[in-house]
Amino acid sequence: MASESGKLWGGRFVGAVDPIMERFNASIAYDRHLWEVDVLGSKAYSRGLEKAGLLTRAERDQILRGLDQVAEEWAQGTFKLHRNDEDIHTANERRLKELIGDVAGKLHTGRSRNDQVVTDLRLWMRQTCTSLLGLLHELIRTMVDRAEAERDVLFPGYTHLQRAQPIRWSHWILSHAVALTRDSERLLEIQKRINVLPLGSGAIAGNPLGVDRELLRAELNFGAITLNSMDATSERDFVVEFLFWASLCGTHLSRMAEDLILYGTKEFSFVQLSDAYSTGSSLMPQKKNPDSLELIRSKAGRVFGRCAGLLMTLKGLPSTYNKDLQEDKEAVFEVSDTMSAVLQVAAGVISTLQIHRENMARALSPDMLATDLAYYLVRKGMPFRQAHEASGRAVVLAESRGVALSELSLSELQGISPLFSSDVSRVWDYGHSVEQYSALGGTARASVDWQIGQVRALLLAQQPPSPAAQ
Amino acid sequence: MASESGKLWGGRFVGAVDPIMERFNASIAYDRHLWEVDVLGSKAYSRGLEKAGLLTRAERDQILRGLDQVAEEWAQGTFKLHRNDEDIHTANERRLKELIGDVAGKLHTGRSRNDQVVTDLRLWMRQTCTSLLGLLHELIRTMVDRAEAERDVLFPGYTHLQRAQPIRWSHWILSHAVALTRDSERLLEIQKRINVLPLGSGAIAGNPLGVDRELLRAELNFGAITLNSMDATSERDFVVEFLFWASLCGTHLSRMAEDLILYGTKEFSFVQLSDAYSTGSSLMPQKKNPDSLELIRSKAGRVFGRCAGLLMTLKGLPSTYNKDLQEDKEAVFEVSDTMSAVLQVAAGVISTLQIHRENMARALSPDMLATDLAYYLVRKGMPFRQAHEASGRAVVLAESRGVALSELSLSELQGISPLFSSDVSRVWDYGHSVEQYSALGGTARASVDWQIGQVRALLLAQQPPSPAAQ
Amino acid sequence: MASESGKLWGGRFVGAVDPIMERFNASIAYDRHLWEVDVLGSKAYSRGLEKAGLLTRAERDQILRGLDQVAEEWAQGTFKLHRNDEDIHTANERRLKELIGDVAGKLHTGRSRNDQVVTDLRLWMRQTCTSLLGLLHELIRTMVDRAEAERDVLFPGYTHLQRAQPIRWSHWILSHAVALTRDSERLLEIQKRINVLPLGSGAIAGNPLGVDRELLRAELNFGAITLNSMDATSERDFVVEFLFWASLCGTHLSRMAEDLILYGTKEFSFVQLSDAYSTGSSLMPQKKNPDSLELIRSKAGRVFGRCAGLLMTLKGLPSTYNKDLQEDKEAVFEVSDTMSAVLQVAAGVISTLQIHRENMARALSPDMLATDLAYYLVRKGMPFRQAHEASGRAVVLAESRGVALSELSLSELQGISPLFSSDVSRVWDYGHSVEQYSALGGTARASVDWQIGQVRALLLAQQPPSPAAQ
Amino acid sequence: MASESGKLWGGRFVGAVDPIMERFNASIAYDRHLWEVDVLGSKAYSRGLEKAGLLTRAERDQILRGLDQVAEEWAQGTFKLHRNDEDIHTANERRLKELIGDVAGKLHTGRSRNDQVVTDLRLWMRQTCTSLLGLLHELIRTMVDRAEAERDVLFPGYTHLQRAQPIRWSHWILSHAVALTRDSERLLEIQKRINVLPLGSGAIAGNPLGVDRELLRAELNFGAITLNSMDATSERDFVVEFLFWASLCGTHLSRMAEDLILYGTKEFSFVQLSDAYSTGSSLMPQKKNPDSLELIRSKAGRVFGRCAGLLMTLKGLPSTYNKDLQEDKEAVFEVSDTMSAVLQVAAGVISTLQIHRENMARALSPDMLATDLAYYLVRKGMPFRQAHEASGRAVVLAESRGVALSELSLSELQGISPLFSSDVSRVWDYGHSVEQYSALGGTARASVDWQIGQVRALLLAQQPPSPAAQ
Repeated sequence: MASESGKLWGGRFVGAVDPIMERFNASIAYDRHLWEVDVLGSKAYSRGLEKAGLLTRAERDQILRGLDQVAEEWAQGTFKLHRNDEDIHTANERRLKELIGDVAGKLHTGRSRNDQVVTDLRLWMRQTCTSLLGLLHELIRTMVDRAEAERDVLFPGYTHLQRAQPIRWSHWILSHAVALTRDSERLLEIQKRINVLPLGSGAIAGNPLGVDRELLRAELNFGAITLNSMDATSERDFVVEFLFWASLCGTHLSRMAEDLILYGTKEFSFVQLSDAYSTGSSLMPQKKNPDSLELIRSKAGRVFGRCAGLLMTLKGLPSTYNKDLQEDKEAVFEVSDTMSAVLQVAAGVISTLQIHRENMARALSPDMLATDLAYYLVRKGMPFRQAHEASGRAVVLAESRGVALSELSLSELQGISPLFSSDVSRVWDYGHSVEQYSALGGTARASVDWQIGQVRALLLAQQPPSPAAQ
Repeated sequence: MASESGKLWGGRFVGAVDPIMERFNASIAYDRHLWEVDVLGSKAYSRGLEKAGLLTRAERDQILRGLDQVAEEWAQGTFKLHRNDEDIHTANERRLKELIGDVAGKLHTGRSRNDQVVTDLRLWMRQTCTSLLGLLHELIRTMVDRAEAERDVLFPGYTHLQRAQPIRWSHWILSHAVALTRDSERLLEIQKRINVLPLGSGAIAGNPLGVDRELLRAELNFGAITLNSMDATSERDFVVEFLFWASLCGTHLSRMAEDLILYGTKEFSFVQLSDAYSTGSSLMPQKKNPDSLELIRSKAGRVFGRCAGLLMTLKGLPSTYNKDLQEDKEAVFEVSDTMSAVLQVAAGVISTLQIHRENMARALSPDMLATDLAYYLVRKGMPFRQAHEASGRAVVLAESRGVALSELSLSELQGISPLFSSDVSRVWDYGHSVEQYSALGGTARASVDWQIGQVRALLLAQQPPSPAAQ
Repeated sequence: MASESGKLWGGRFVGAVDPIMERFNASIAYDRHLWEVDVLGSKAYSRGLEKAGLLTRAERDQILRGLDQVAEEWAQGTFKLHRNDEDIHTANERRLKELIGDVAGKLHTGRSRNDQVVTDLRLWMRQTCTSLLGLLHELIRTMVDRAEAERDVLFPGYTHLQRAQPIRWSHWILSHAVALTRDSERLLEIQKRINVLPLGSGAIAGNPLGVDRELLRAELNFGAITLNSMDATSERDFVVEFLFWASLCGTHLSRMAEDLILYGTKEFSFVQLSDAYSTGSSLMPQKKNPDSLELIRSKAGRVFGRCAGLLMTLKGLPSTYNKDLQEDKEAVFEVSDTMSAVLQVAAGVISTLQIHRENMARALSPDMLATDLAYYLVRKGMPFRQAHEASGRAVVLAESRGVALSELSLSELQGISPLFSSDVSRVWDYGHSVEQYSALGGTARASVDWQIGQVRALLLAQQPPSPAAQ
Repeated sequence: MASESGKLWGGRFVGAVDPIMERFNASIAYDRHLWEVDVLGSKAYSRGLEKAGLLTRAERDQILRGLDQVAEEWAQGTFKLHRNDEDIHTANERRLKELIGDVAGKLHTGRSRNDQVVTDLRLWMRQTCTSLLGLLHELIRTMVDRAEAERDVLFPGYTHLQRAQPIRWSHWILSHAVALTRDSERLLEIQKRINVLPLGSGAIAGNPLGVDRELLRAELNFGAITLNSMDATSERDFVVEFLFWASLCGTHLSRMAEDLILYGTKEFSFVQLSDAYSTGSSLMPQKKNPDSLELIRSKAGRVFGRCAGLLMTLKGLPSTYNKDLQEDKEAVFEVSDTMSAVLQVAAGVISTLQIHRENMARALSPDMLATDLAYYLVRKGMPFRQAHEASGRAVVLAESRGVALSELSLSELQGISPLFSSDVSRVWDYGHSVEQYSALGGTARASVDWQIGQVRALLLAQQPPSPAAQ
């Protein structure tokens, strides 16, 4: 039979070990990022073992000192990986044994790689969420500050990319900032679910040696402990949730980027990217391309791909730990890096963007006030549906006469409805137009101020748990 | 030029209207599901218009009565759609006008289809979340009841689909129930974000007619109002979140289904599906197939597809309303239906499943206690790494001798380590084994009881807001 | 035990039959679309049975006549579904039995629903591919005709949405038409893989009754027969491939739609959609929205969602038929309908689109000729990198002087490079510019003509197999 | 205004350059993999420039020698990257200039990074496809060789994971091998579409300097040239197709891996993985886990994620080159590496897998012959539907009597149908059973031999174009 006789059914030679399989199997190339949290988790676990009487106080201290030295080597860049260090956990334990001898072999008592790896990942992600939340808030703050400073700039609001109604430029900024506050809210919810301790679940059945999981939780500052050891070692909800969070946040940023790319075209000419966020062309000397915004737009796809990939990997997987779960970490690391860059570049773009107020003003045209014209009639008592139709007739009349809507004479308007009188002229004032939209959430100045206040209040409310609480 | 002269550049004839375009554009085939919430939203809005002085009390009452009649026709199945009713909003308004005349034309004052449709969808989904939450809790409750009743049944726990350690059958049930409590928690969070009122945002700029959005909120029992009119009319986060929720919940159920399909094979023979959830073969008379479980497993894919599809549709979309957003509703309706069926079928399967205790017991074997053998040595003072190795040597010895691990003689064991003594015989008792795993979350009876209590407490805590609060 | 005693572990009551499970399981709601091909397949199979001696000639004829009657009832809309008709195959066989009695029971001899359903689906999709190919070619033809007619219209070519170089409008049209020819090529390849007969594979092991699969193939005009019965009944590559085809084709159309939406904004004003493909606003009387293009753009997401969903369903599925495969048909039907509409609407849009030549011309500006200015120097012998830099300096000089690039005086240019002489004025002619790009694939008139010829040749070469050959 | 005054609207400081933006923008970290094809493309282009009279023969030779030296430095690992080498094209051109001076500046004449990068990527992928095709064929060959050698081993065929009918083990192997031949066919089709030259398309408008694209094509051994410069520089169909190819091929392998994981459980015990493809447990000494197969299964998700991500990035992208397209390369590199490993590990697994024939034989049971029992009656003239029912009655009778189906007495069988006679005993022979399935594609020995021949013929037919042809 095959593996006994070594006889192969074709294929390249395979001895006791297939080097391609070894590389395929090893995760050290990327899970080394976990070195710090792996040491942290092991230190807490050794304290748990001591409380449970499985380590003497002296053994515990020996292990703690050894682990500190391992961490120091990583921090100094002097940690040497060995050929057989297939993952960070093996590497750290191997090194610990070299440093402190056989007592190192007690550290893994009652612990499995299954609960160890997921504890490490949660520790790492908890930290990453705090850091991403900081970057996200920085971006939102930049947007809100800018919205406050430029709140008297008007420009066209679009729907279906067709000019719709005059709005404040700040209203546009805030529309994206408000979307990002939901990302902030969601990230906190996910962080809460990340912040649950699986250590003490063993490989599948739990921990049989009297280790106090509540003590481990307190040591590592987790908010709660997992409820079921089989679930704890194999669920990756918090990973998928994080990847989905990034996909949705990335989609928000892709929409903002798309707007800014359009507003920065020659045709719109509303904004101009700072040179720091543009690049030139290798062929066309006159070009300045919005590469930063295009990259932001594109990353929504990449990040979503990781989410889709992991969900597909999880689909239909049998219970508990399977090696398939090893796919989680590269996805998390890549997506964290990507989101970190995306958020910072977006903040840089927003904070250095130049706006062309005159072009914005010039892009407003009387036909964008057709709705206001209908409202004028509504205020005079006409049902909205008729007013909408009357205003539509005025639009057609102006077009057919080749004049702006505001240039129709009063008598022409009165030919459409006798409700028109000379005060209709006020309709044609864009500043007056936007001030009408004073219901909360609208584009009137007071409402924009209210929005700014609301978003700032959210930023205050959406702080991550303090380091002490972690 | 093309559209002027009617001259075409090839292609089928296109007159003023392209019937394929009309069908492509219309949403009435599916958004009719919204008839009830559309009427609800319009009733609230007419009250808002009255408070704002845009309707007299009499007009408001006329509209309210008309809307009630529209709703009555839908409820009775007598509502007749017209050729031009492209969506539910048009249909209802058209019918209202037929019933009460021109005053119907006042209802849309200051309202746009953009804020109307998203208000309707939020009302519909708020209700759906409550209903899905009920079904999800029913499923979890069924699982917990069963876990409590069968908590003394032992069977093999697997990792990598290889027999790992003896566990309680209830521990397995609870591992899936606990996963579902996270779905319950997430659904509540999403419902909270759904429960925010966009009405009063108009098409883009807001509402200019003094409509009090706080009053609308109270009328419709929303928890809050949206902050920015541009965002309010075009963000579909709550839809994507819901679709993702279903994807992750569906993935959990796919994993449970996979387990049960395996446990129901001839080879495992741990469980047997009730006939109500199996089907026969058109060709093979002896077969009984687990179609219910296979369908549950498969739906994770379908539901995720909708999530992926909508996210891709949203990626890079310019600000505010674009027709692309029309993709939201079919996705929501299909996924709601699918999850409703999946949850109910899963509850039916679990509640009628038969277990084969003897086969479960028979599948336990002494080699599954190799870890316990190592722990035995640990308790005698051996570092875990050495104990793991010693136990491994015992496994190899038993294999080479062709006996069960438990059949090694004491002297054989002592040949491996002098720490072995006669009390090692206790290791071979499966009941004793599971009771060791007494740390919280483990498979000991006390821990399983604790889990049951925890999950029941979560079910109590995770109730949807009461109808009154909605 | 549960199913014996009828005692439930909670949950709603479940008797012998769970109505929700029945609906969950049934596919008749959608697989009825297969009625025609199901009859076709059964007719061929009955011929195969007769050749194998399993039916007499008389029995065969009786079955054939019965099947024709079944088909007639479907065609006339008089076919009555029964409560137990869970799928189209059951329904048709049940009806056949009603019509011709027990001999109907011979039709399924050696056939399984597993090979029957996949044969039906392949027959249906083969036909659908031909029909979609026709619509795709119609669209490409429309584009090519238009490209030919308007090939002297120039407008700006963009990269990064920044004006780059003058190009022919036809060059833009052809860039999208060429992409669609690849979709055409791919669809033919997929059709070839669809056109393989699985009938005669039974449920898993094959056909044991001497049925001649080559005869079945010829009867049903398939190009080949499947090689392995286990694979034949459970592989859905051809479905996934089709869904992916639609995703990529839809992505192409989404990019074309995006361009046209931009070109149709007030800011670009290059094109205007025909009224048949636009819609108005419920609030804003002046608006005309490009709904058709937005729908086209959005459908790429929906279609991809189906592809993603099915692939996820297939991932990790055990060999051979599992009920999970039932997800294939709804995906195929929905995507076929969607693509059919998308292709026809796109053809309608293109064939009725109005272009604004003056706006296109006006949008060309001398800075778009900066590359040509560099080429001017290259032709005078300067290495391109230096020429690129020199041209860049000219751009900066013109900007700083506030004049167009073409308005720099000869001496100013010579200040940058002595290679400039009076013939530089030719550079500023847009018509001259585009004619330079005469390498195959470029925007010169001859190259555009060549492209038109190439695409037309592809359309001829990419015809579906003739009906006779099917 | 922002960028003028340097005043920021909050956010970290941003000077002329944002280092995070620079890293975000740079691709050198991964596109350095293209060094060899970049040199290859540049060498061909310099020959094209010489033929077009833009380089003298001496200049061309100087450039060719310089490029060879650049390549040599990469090959030797001595190439030094500079801080400003943002991508491989910049790096190589910068180095060339250092080596040969200003004449290097002529190399980019008429070429843009847009056509250069896509030419490089196509060259790289063409090569990769050939290499992956080789690995795929190696895997298929291994499977076919094994199928041939073990074709007399019988074991249960499953549908719905329930035992269905006896089949040959080789029939199972071939079911997966046949699926892989479709992947081979598809890869060749994609390679054909990759093998099309875009060079000479410039940035958007084409090449204006008389460069002969046909000559470039011949130099680089491409099969054809692209038709439209705008499309050529921005379409990434061939990338998405490749990623989809990997997703589908990966899905096939995930299904085979799932089967083998099941077959390798204690419960099935049909196969045993070689040690080279298993790993132990950090906690449980007795375990041997099928990590190789789990990794293969999981990679389908990862690879699909890349496909989904890129398609989402492309959706709705405006025409021609946008920086978003930079996402293509990392996806391609990662997926190529993954598929290369997956295919090799799969081949290793298959070639070293041990099978347990006795367990396979023991798993066959008479109830799996119930279909054959029905066919027995069919051969005696009973319509299949009745025979299916009669066989079903026999199954129930045997169950109720607690005997195997084959142990029913003749008179018991005759109680069900008088058509049973003593020759029914032949039905209970598994070897006889499989030999009945002799239609092409079935599990009879002759059919299995035919399949082996067919697959081998496909392998011969599906060779990549010879190196010479490339």
